[in-house]
Amino acid sequence: MCVLGLGLIGGSLMRAATAAGREAFGYNRSADGVRAAQADGFDASTSVVETLERAAATHALIVLAVPMPALPSLLDHVRTTAPDCPLTDVTSVKVAVLQSVREHGLLDRFVGGHPMTGTAHSGWTAGDVGLFTGAPWVLSVDDHVDPQVWAEVMHLALDCGSVVVPAKSDQHDAAAAAISHLPHLLAEALAVTAGDVPLAFALAASSFRDGTRVAATAPDLVRAMCEANSDQLIAALDRAIYELEQARNGLSAMGSVADLVESGHAARMRYDSFSRPDISLITVGEGGWRNELAAAGRAGGVIRSALPVRGSRG
Amino acid sequence: MCVLGLGLIGGSLMRAATAAGREAFGYNRSADGVRAAQADGFDASTSVVETLERAAATHALIVLAVPMPALPSLLDHVRTTAPDCPLTDVTSVKVAVLQSVREHGLLDRFVGGHPMTGTAHSGWTAGDVGLFTGAPWVLSVDDHVDPQVWAEVMHLALDCGSVVVPAKSDQHDAAAAAISHLPHLLAEALAVTAGDVPLAFALAASSFRDGTRVAATAPDLVRAMCEANSDQLIAALDRAIYELEQARNGLSAMGSVADLVESGHAARMRYDSFSRPDISLITVGEGGWRNELAAAGRAGGVIRSALPVRGSRG
Repeated sequence: MCVLGLGLIGGSLMRAATAAGREAFGYNRSADGVRAAQADGFDASTSVVETLERAAATHALIVLAVPMPALPSLLDHVRTTAPDCPLTDVTSVKVAVLQSVREHGLLDRFVGGHPMTGTAHSGWTAGDVGLFTGAPWVLSVDDHVDPQVWAEVMHLALDCGSVVVPAKSDQHDAAAAAISHLPHLLAEALAVTAGDVPLAFALAASSFRDGTRVAATAPDLVRAMCEANSDQLIAALDRAIYELEQARNGLSAMGSVADLVESGHAARMRYDSFSRPDISLITVGEGGWRNELAAAGRAGGVIRSALPVRGSRG
Repeated sequence: MCVLGLGLIGGSLMRAATAAGREAFGYNRSADGVRAAQADGFDASTSVVETLERAAATHALIVLAVPMPALPSLLDHVRTTAPDCPLTDVTSVKVAVLQSVREHGLLDRFVGGHPMTGTAHSGWTAGDVGLFTGAPWVLSVDDHVDPQVWAEVMHLALDCGSVVVPAKSDQHDAAAAAISHLPHLLAEALAVTAGDVPLAFALAASSFRDGTRVAATAPDLVRAMCEANSDQLIAALDRAIYELEQARNGLSAMGSVADLVESGHAARMRYDSFSRPDISLITVGEGGWRNELAAAGRAGGVIRSALPVRGSRG
């Protein structure tokens, strides 16, 4: 397989795939990242063209592991040099990536992916062979996806220790806005608010540390994911602002925050008891498989062992 | 010492004080809590009057460790049975407690306290001898406080493994609104928002888990602390809502969340590098000591070893 971009996610992917017995080679724009990867014994290059020529020659699975803003120029290279390779990505938004891949004429061989993991750190040295262990890895089941490519990416995710969550790209983005992008903006707002109150940092304890942890993420990464998912994020922000305004008005008028506190607690309890059944009775490539997988994913289902693929021997 | 209320904080305090070699006895309203404490070998009673008679006879330090709503009736008992004992509390708001203590005529012997620690669980069984280790424990240095009582509570906090942060009650409450009460409401709003998005719980990862952790706290406890600090919390909510609205409008009009993300990241970085120097050159009870300690606390200073007390041999 061929990893384009050897930062936190791409670098961890290279380590995890190699540990699982796969052959992996990669490209990174910065020579520092490439040198660090080579020093750790990995096969890395600063030449995107040579890396993609090698992928084309071996029909390797290409993983796009660069931030959103770097994606279009990388897709230009893929179109020119390795247009027939199976293609996936690990970007935190899916509709915008899908649109860009479509504009580059690479849709046929593309299955969007998003491993739901990360840390506040970045770069090759922040990578971790265990980063994907137990994490949900979303694989798109949009109408166009090819079952053979889908199965290939499913095997990669499982090899890296993830559980696979099948989802439509637009539903992924609405969920990601609510559970990933909104939390980042809430954390930033909390940090800003506390930052202006004398004594606040002196008293900060776990509520504040947990509540602002993701505000330590590099601003460029936060902006890239929030701004690439703006429609869904605006809807999530509107809902959160509405809830906070209602609480503020209830506190001012009646001295009570009961409504928000009780509904928030109930929602968190539902989350704590949310079950994650195995998806096991669906064959990839068999009539209606994409919609069946999407429905199973919405119901909480995850793929923990590889599903059978139609037309493959198993 | 005498602990009134043997829930998470009071029960942990009894364990920690005992482990530090202090004699401790306590009262709890529910017989279940008392039986659980007794089963663990602690000296507990369901009689508030007998417990306070014992405190009065031994001039024990009384620690009020009940939720805000239960405080007035407990202060009635203290006024009747043990009005001359040194008195402190462990409640998460300080001005409202101070007001209630003043109304009960118990101000002279009172020093407000707030150990900045906790978990999402409650009750005697949730207690932990190490709950206070390394946690900031705020001690009020309001104009009325008596140096001998202040020193006695300082020793208790240090014995339990905390570091002491001296603060004025109103400044504590403004800070607590920003770093504790606001994070609870943001967590509730996040849980509610995500709870209505299909697929959100299926994809939830660390950003969501961390961002909603405190929404698992019992609603009554969250309401008690938020509603007892409503003026300060409204101010913090207004600021946070303003920041989120600006971000929402920037995202809608310009596709950018740069302002919030950059200022939030900068605030979190300031927090990460916030230094906690030792407070060591102030003598408790010496002219201006209360204001000197409050200023040192605002600057990040903490008391890690007991300060000298004027008129005490040491």
